Amino acid sequence: MTEANIIYVGKKPTMNYVLAVVTQFNNNIEKVTIKARGKAISKAVDIAEIAKRKFVQTANYDNITLSTEVVEGERGESNVSSIEIVMSRTK
Amino acid sequence: MTEANIIYVGKKPTMNYVLAVVTQFNNNIEKVTIKARGKAISKAVDIAEIAKRKFVQTANYDNITLSTEVVEGERGESNVSSIEIVMSRTK
Repeated sequence: MTEANIIYVGKKPTMNYVLAVVTQFNNNIEKVTIKARGKAISKAVDIAEIAKRKFVQTANYDNITLSTEVVEGERGESNVSSIEIVMSRTK
Repeated sequence: MTEANIIYVGKKPTMNYVLAVVTQFNNNIEKVTIKARGKAISKAVDIAEIAKRKFVQTANYDNITLSTEVVEGERGESNVSSIEIVMSRTK
């Protein structure tokens, strides 16, 4: 959660990230991006769906992008899938 | 894998589903849909990315849809996130 408007999904509980998304929208930010890699992708989809259904019903999916990133690990490079979910709120 | 052109992601190894996607495209089917729920969503993204990058380079993402499904379980109804990835091949 270092950059404004971008929420990076990691190991914290799902609701922490949902709250982060909702807070952004409540601060009148129009576009919020949720990013996740590997196994956190499922959690990113949960976060987006919960935020949209329970808290910010006027939000919609602007764009969903899948890609592959190269990650430097202990045993050399490996590929990991990633998702980027861009949500925006209609006024 | 009951309906034609739709691949449902479950507990089998990732490469089984990648092979199913590649086989569909090799049978001259133009659109292949990958569907997954809950924790299998991450695997669905892996499957799509591996199929696209390693086997069917001419495939693109037509449409990616996120939604929430109600599932009847032992302890009543619960919500589960789902993803639908539609891939098509440019000729």
